[in-house]
Amino acid sequence: MTGTTITAQPGTPFIEVTREFAAPKPAVFRAHTEPDLVKQWLGPRDLEMEILEFDARSGGSYRYVHRADRGEFRFRGVFHSVEEDSRIIQTFEFEGAPGEVCLETMTLTETDGGTRVQVRSVFPSVEARDAMVASGMESGIVEGYEQLDELLAKEA
Amino acid sequence: MTGTTITAQPGTPFIEVTREFAAPKPAVFRAHTEPDLVKQWLGPRDLEMEILEFDARSGGSYRYVHRADRGEFRFRGVFHSVEEDSRIIQTFEFEGAPGEVCLETMTLTETDGGTRVQVRSVFPSVEARDAMVASGMESGIVEGYEQLDELLAKEA
Repeated sequence: MTGTTITAQPGTPFIEVTREFAAPKPAVFRAHTEPDLVKQWLGPRDLEMEILEFDARSGGSYRYVHRADRGEFRFRGVFHSVEEDSRIIQTFEFEGAPGEVCLETMTLTETDGGTRVQVRSVFPSVEARDAMVASGMESGIVEGYEQLDELLAKEA
Repeated sequence: MTGTTITAQPGTPFIEVTREFAAPKPAVFRAHTEPDLVKQWLGPRDLEMEILEFDARSGGSYRYVHRADRGEFRFRGVFHSVEEDSRIIQTFEFEGAPGEVCLETMTLTETDGGTRVQVRSVFPSVEARDAMVASGMESGIVEGYEQLDELLAKEA
């Protein structure tokens, strides 16, 4: 398994994340769109995820809470478009920083051994992007994807 | 009436538009959220707007067609958040460039003479932003806001 690549070029409002998974596209897509699966992997290991709403269709909304000893973090957004097994475009807002909404495009590509996930996030400003990078987002993404490896192996 | 200011700094994926209107915030807000009003002003003068869906609430969707002699242009998006008389955050996609979704934040501020509208758009790349600027977007915005002046004067 290759690791997670996170790129955040200085002076830009973008973050790009690339990760490969040893599972076919439909399995990876389901893990991103079915709430019972999403809650098993998204975010760092030390928290519990409660999903309040998760309607992964074009025009649908989502809202969830991450709970850990260090606090409670609420997130929400809308799905601009959900294209089966290929692409999801959605907004993302941490309710602790209201109004700092980012737009995420996730693309799935078939590879030799499975599926490549690429997520491109665009923030409303370079400062908002820098604040997200400084928040410790990286470990959450890396640990989340490790949990997704485990979930995909279990489901296979 | 001051004119429309459009700023697109080279090498960034942002466009900022600022315009003042001689009307109170609730009137300007209604003109952006009630489809019967929106269709009277949005876009350049030489086209007809047909609204297929316009549900200006947090989590709602919109879809419309602009028709002119030179062609037909379809747009769609979702409303991430709609805060009465103050702020709207929404996605925006020209269906002729599918997947190039931008995120727009519109903020209303009370001024001495009325209301200042600020719209900040963030594109998925600098190239997508440059393509939008090159598309002749400027005249559509300027003419649209002139039509909004006329509508607000009529409604007052």
